[in-house]
Amino acid sequence: MDPRSLLIESYKAAVAAVDPLVILPQHLPKPPKGRTLVIGAGKAAASMAAAVERNWPADAPLEGVVITRYEHGMPTSRIRVVEAGHPVPDENGEAAAREILAAVQTLGPDDLLLALVSGGGSSLLSLPVEGISMTELKQVTKDLLKSGAPIQDMNTVRKHLSLIQGGRLTAACKAQVLALVISDVTGDEATHIASGPCAPDPTTFADAVAILKRWEVTPPASVAKVLDEGVRGIRAETPKPGDPVFARCENRVIGTATGMLTAAADFFAAHGIASAVLGDSVTGEAREVAKVYGALAREVRTHDRPFKAPIALISGGECTVTVRGNGRGGRCAEFLMSLCIDLEGSADMYALAADTDGIDGSEDNAGAYLGPDSLARAAAKGLPKALAFLENNDAYSFFEALGDLIVTGPTRTNVNDYRVILLTR
Amino acid sequence: MDPRSLLIESYKAAVAAVDPLVILPQHLPKPPKGRTLVIGAGKAAASMAAAVERNWPADAPLEGVVITRYEHGMPTSRIRVVEAGHPVPDENGEAAAREILAAVQTLGPDDLLLALVSGGGSSLLSLPVEGISMTELKQVTKDLLKSGAPIQDMNTVRKHLSLIQGGRLTAACKAQVLALVISDVTGDEATHIASGPCAPDPTTFADAVAILKRWEVTPPASVAKVLDEGVRGIRAETPKPGDPVFARCENRVIGTATGMLTAAADFFAAHGIASAVLGDSVTGEAREVAKVYGALAREVRTHDRPFKAPIALISGGECTVTVRGNGRGGRCAEFLMSLCIDLEGSADMYALAADTDGIDGSEDNAGAYLGPDSLARAAAKGLPKALAFLENNDAYSFFEALGDLIVTGPTRTNVNDYRVILLTR
Repeated sequence: MDPRSLLIESYKAAVAAVDPLVILPQHLPKPPKGRTLVIGAGKAAASMAAAVERNWPADAPLEGVVITRYEHGMPTSRIRVVEAGHPVPDENGEAAAREILAAVQTLGPDDLLLALVSGGGSSLLSLPVEGISMTELKQVTKDLLKSGAPIQDMNTVRKHLSLIQGGRLTAACKAQVLALVISDVTGDEATHIASGPCAPDPTTFADAVAILKRWEVTPPASVAKVLDEGVRGIRAETPKPGDPVFARCENRVIGTATGMLTAAADFFAAHGIASAVLGDSVTGEAREVAKVYGALAREVRTHDRPFKAPIALISGGECTVTVRGNGRGGRCAEFLMSLCIDLEGSADMYALAADTDGIDGSEDNAGAYLGPDSLARAAAKGLPKALAFLENNDAYSFFEALGDLIVTGPTRTNVNDYRVILLTR
Repeated sequence: MDPRSLLIESYKAAVAAVDPLVILPQHLPKPPKGRTLVIGAGKAAASMAAAVERNWPADAPLEGVVITRYEHGMPTSRIRVVEAGHPVPDENGEAAAREILAAVQTLGPDDLLLALVSGGGSSLLSLPVEGISMTELKQVTKDLLKSGAPIQDMNTVRKHLSLIQGGRLTAACKAQVLALVISDVTGDEATHIASGPCAPDPTTFADAVAILKRWEVTPPASVAKVLDEGVRGIRAETPKPGDPVFARCENRVIGTATGMLTAAADFFAAHGIASAVLGDSVTGEAREVAKVYGALAREVRTHDRPFKAPIALISGGECTVTVRGNGRGGRCAEFLMSLCIDLEGSADMYALAADTDGIDGSEDNAGAYLGPDSLARAAAKGLPKALAFLENNDAYSFFEALGDLIVTGPTRTNVNDYRVILLTR
């Protein structure tokens, strides 16, 4: 297989390893004596619901509703799929979240709640506690985001303002609960994915107050009031680890970035190529991350260390792009654009970067492909110098002009990015 | 040895591998029939001169002058050491460069020119061709720097405006020439270090003109005139590879970042610890580079791949710091500050980053040390949160408060940065 095809097929193998239609069926339990209610939220919600439906006995009752991002739906028959706003919640999401909570409360001990949880669920499954409006909830999350607070801190606050998250969905339910989780966060802990609607919450109201203080965020008065009541014990805490409600609940993480990267490594091994997994939780500005991996590739090429070619250097995680220009392109295309400049003139190096959700930033591509001839082909087409594209955050246009975009459409799953640099010799 | 001492000793071993007093003597030739003139420029010039002096037969004639950065001098007896401005050239440097050129022109075929070349020499050994003032030379280099042009492009322009660089020193000399070179640039080619005063120059006047155009730099009229005359053949080109003048000249690279990193790896091996060299040419914003290596450390800790602990993750190169705040600290301290935040709460991880020249940015420290207890010790001392130091580019203050600065003073050599992350299990 030529290097370009190898890279594209490795991406497909990586995504397949976290595709609900492939990995979810083996985790389905036997139907219970009573009803089975399927609920869920996240970028993978629709395909997880479809995976349940297609593998659930036709004669066993099945009902439910899941919330996913716009354009991430897919046809289902027994479970309803609602599309809603993400990352900014909207009224579609709020209405569906309210419906989900009400449905869960109707379940009894003989019933089963099947919760399908994936990244994006924190905002898709937003339902503020009484006394706080959706606008106020959005305000405090937006302010925390801007303050630089990490996602875990944001979720601690969110859990204490939500009727559903921080394990409250399990607490609201009398049935057996099985939460199947696809993780898009470092550590793959259920409490951090979609703010853990079914998972024990180790954090407290006091933590939430301390976080707002630490990040110097002044919340709306209603939010401050709710948190204060929580601290003073007037409002109930989220259910904690060890709480008896979790005796009838299992959170099972079925898809992770690690699994995705392992599948890519296995793919290369099957094609006789060694690989090195450099991290499943890489953050950092995409263009800078590229320089670090560029230096690693040079080290392998020039000094045969710390690996010997042929080798595939694989990584996952979620990079960032600080927008400076007004071009098009997500973090994967920007990573490749910077790598292209860093590796200028280096033969026998190939790379691919693509988001496992199929959407690189806000464009229609999943990512792009970079070859040792990319710069030469760009010059032959009379494109401006590569650096100009990078400076304008316009990597999409560069790879589009070369016919090197990777376009898949939404994959309806998400464990963040897949990046690979292939050194053929 | 405890982890902290291990890291500090590994840094000393790394610096020793590029210390002229250690590595230069073995490269000294026999004294020639005639005179021996020592000239040189760069951050390592004084210690290279001292290494020559101490190992040159007392009864053989030896004379010369070298230019180094302020505070990088050291006592010598037979070779004069001039301190001058860097990175912005000044009149001390210009006068000494003029003296060097005049002295070289007095040599005959029985004499030896010993040229001691190291990083920083491009600006320390500046001597513009007739018709261009030092101010105009500085202007065009400053504009190129600002344009984002890589150092190689800048040096191509510099070589064509200089009486000394781009191999012109060899061309101006009738003696045997031995240039001993300590490299601070990727690829370790003599033509790129200090703009290659003794090395064949593959670039042309036309290249210099094209570079100014590509980076949209409008040079002073005098510079444009000189380059134009060069293109039209009125001015002589720099001597090219294959030019007979180089038949009596050798450029020998005696110190590199690669050698420095290998010495560190050997040090760890001698202490029973495996290591991985991740690149000798890492660029990128220091705080972002830290996140990539943080993810790699987590991958090793959590998944035993691509390496197994205990392991030392070693890298070199030259990171950048974009100044956002008004604190103190160079790129090594900033790297560690960001790593500290990225690895928060990770036990059994230790790190050190220090510049091999002994100066991290413009402070008095070479770098700093980071331990698994750094955050706890900072909290015990009542320091503000780590992120506040990073946001204010104030990593120096953080590590100073902890007593974790590494202070060596100028080492009088330079192959850029040394970084290591040690995972003990």
